[in-house]
Amino acid sequence: MSTFIQQAKYLFYSEGALLQTDGFKKRSLVVSTLAEAEFFADSGHFQDILYGFPLTADKIERCRSLNQRLAEFHVMIDSYAILKELDRVGSDSCVWSIFIAVDCGYGREGVPWDDDRLIALAGEVTNGRFLSLAGIYTHCGHSYNSQTPSDVARTACTRMSQVKQQLEAADIRCSVYGIGSTPSCSSIVPEMQNVNEMHPGNYIFYDLQQHMIGSCSKQEIACTIATRIIGHYPERNELLIDCGFTARTKQGMDVCAAVFKDHSELRLVGMTQEIGIVSSDEKIDFTKFPVGSMILQYPWHSCASAGMHPAYFVHVNGVVTAVWKPCRGW
Amino acid sequence: MSTFIQQAKYLFYSEGALLQTDGFKKRSLVVSTLAEAEFFADSGHFQDILYGFPLTADKIERCRSLNQRLAEFHVMIDSYAILKELDRVGSDSCVWSIFIAVDCGYGREGVPWDDDRLIALAGEVTNGRFLSLAGIYTHCGHSYNSQTPSDVARTACTRMSQVKQQLEAADIRCSVYGIGSTPSCSSIVPEMQNVNEMHPGNYIFYDLQQHMIGSCSKQEIACTIATRIIGHYPERNELLIDCGFTARTKQGMDVCAAVFKDHSELRLVGMTQEIGIVSSDEKIDFTKFPVGSMILQYPWHSCASAGMHPAYFVHVNGVVTAVWKPCRGW
Repeated sequence: MSTFIQQAKYLFYSEGALLQTDGFKKRSLVVSTLAEAEFFADSGHFQDILYGFPLTADKIERCRSLNQRLAEFHVMIDSYAILKELDRVGSDSCVWSIFIAVDCGYGREGVPWDDDRLIALAGEVTNGRFLSLAGIYTHCGHSYNSQTPSDVARTACTRMSQVKQQLEAADIRCSVYGIGSTPSCSSIVPEMQNVNEMHPGNYIFYDLQQHMIGSCSKQEIACTIATRIIGHYPERNELLIDCGFTARTKQGMDVCAAVFKDHSELRLVGMTQEIGIVSSDEKIDFTKFPVGSMILQYPWHSCASAGMHPAYFVHVNGVVTAVWKPCRGW
Repeated sequence: MSTFIQQAKYLFYSEGALLQTDGFKKRSLVVSTLAEAEFFADSGHFQDILYGFPLTADKIERCRSLNQRLAEFHVMIDSYAILKELDRVGSDSCVWSIFIAVDCGYGREGVPWDDDRLIALAGEVTNGRFLSLAGIYTHCGHSYNSQTPSDVARTACTRMSQVKQQLEAADIRCSVYGIGSTPSCSSIVPEMQNVNEMHPGNYIFYDLQQHMIGSCSKQEIACTIATRIIGHYPERNELLIDCGFTARTKQGMDVCAAVFKDHSELRLVGMTQEIGIVSSDEKIDFTKFPVGSMILQYPWHSCASAGMHPAYFVHVNGVVTAVWKPCRGW
């Protein structure tokens, strides 16, 4: 496969992000690793990148380089300590554009939306010599575990609006208020008028998890994992496939075994490193699945599965029309 | 990190396999992907490689190339169909060296050890024009879920011995009888005299899973995942770290949360794509874990975690002495 990838005529390195940003018209992205920031900066297509991950001092030098290369590069922080360090190492030619991470209920990174420290932190940014306040950022990761992701969006937008009012009352200007996560952004709610940026990511592919929480239909799942039948074991009503946890992850196995496209009768019942075990509640008709033939699986969590592959094959009517080379690592 | 990897003075591409095969003295390996077979063939150190994965016709051309390049290259099969195809595409200059996969109780690939088809299949190999019987192979994957992995080894060796007797009774010669899996090979049992090859893999690193099933002590776990503290959240007694499921996998999270080396008081309680959530039953002393400082995690399943990283850093007394570049993909 690697030779095929190298020889592919239509090899793209940031095609997904271009689609997500309306082709060449928009140049803005949020990324969650420095490797991604560098990958998209290298592509030349993006001039406005937010590294939407809590920054620590060990990553500052790579950020400085991105700051110099890009028209706009933003970092995300949620504490005084890193802000102080950024100001200390900043300069007239390296002013840091800051997003403050706010926790609107997820309980991961960010200053809680109703915590006094938030306004104080924003004040510190505006007082910094080499700091500039670009925006307020919240990630709605808890929408993945919610039965009503729209309510998560509603609450986050309302809380962001309250943060905005507090900042304005303190005479602190900030141009971007953004919420994110695919489940919370997959339905429009009126409260979204309170924010001016949305940064979901998973929706580029969607997956079974998103389908089950109502973000998308099954037909909207845009990626599948191609695998081959490698053996028939009729005595135990099982097939083996050449896709194990290194190509799919075990995520979701406890929740959803009906993962095969066009074959809802099949169940993914086990996974080892390179082999998947497939069974069915019915007696499998093995003639429908010749050894060596290909079968497609929907991922449970496409972010996790896609991260395991060196390339994505774009196909139209069974013909590969492009190969996307993703960014991996950190 | 990628620049660091590229510039590393001591960059090795098959060092782990050399250690596992007694340096340059032995040249034999079992691999589970064709990418690994090609990777080790490219290294020039290995001249005897078994592709220990149920072969299908779509992979034959890559196997043919390995067959031509290596002094000895073996494929593994468990059905007539692929054997017939190999014989059809073989030639005087491309004789296929065959391992037959036997199922000694695992219930994944292989002909069941006591199934008449096994001897018949071995007969087909010996009757083939361009086929040669090299060995009988069994993988003891069920030892991972066993409370007594030694008993799995005992049973597998006894069954392999019975297969050997049956083959000899049918006047079929076969030089290699091999069992594998790290749990079943981590203790010596007398029945092992019945086989002459063992092919475990995980033991090169071991991991928490192996420790919990008795394959190794915690001190014998040779790899850790280095991660940094990226935030303190004392109001909920949590730390965040820059290691999510793309760097560790979620495997084992339901079984073992005490994953931190030298900090048994900490618990890995959650993992998102790039962020891990750490808590403790005690009140965390945050001064012991400064933001930006490094902390080491043992993997639950090192095969799964190691496969997610582009490089491994070998260190002695805190100094990196080598960088290993692993083989990924298929």
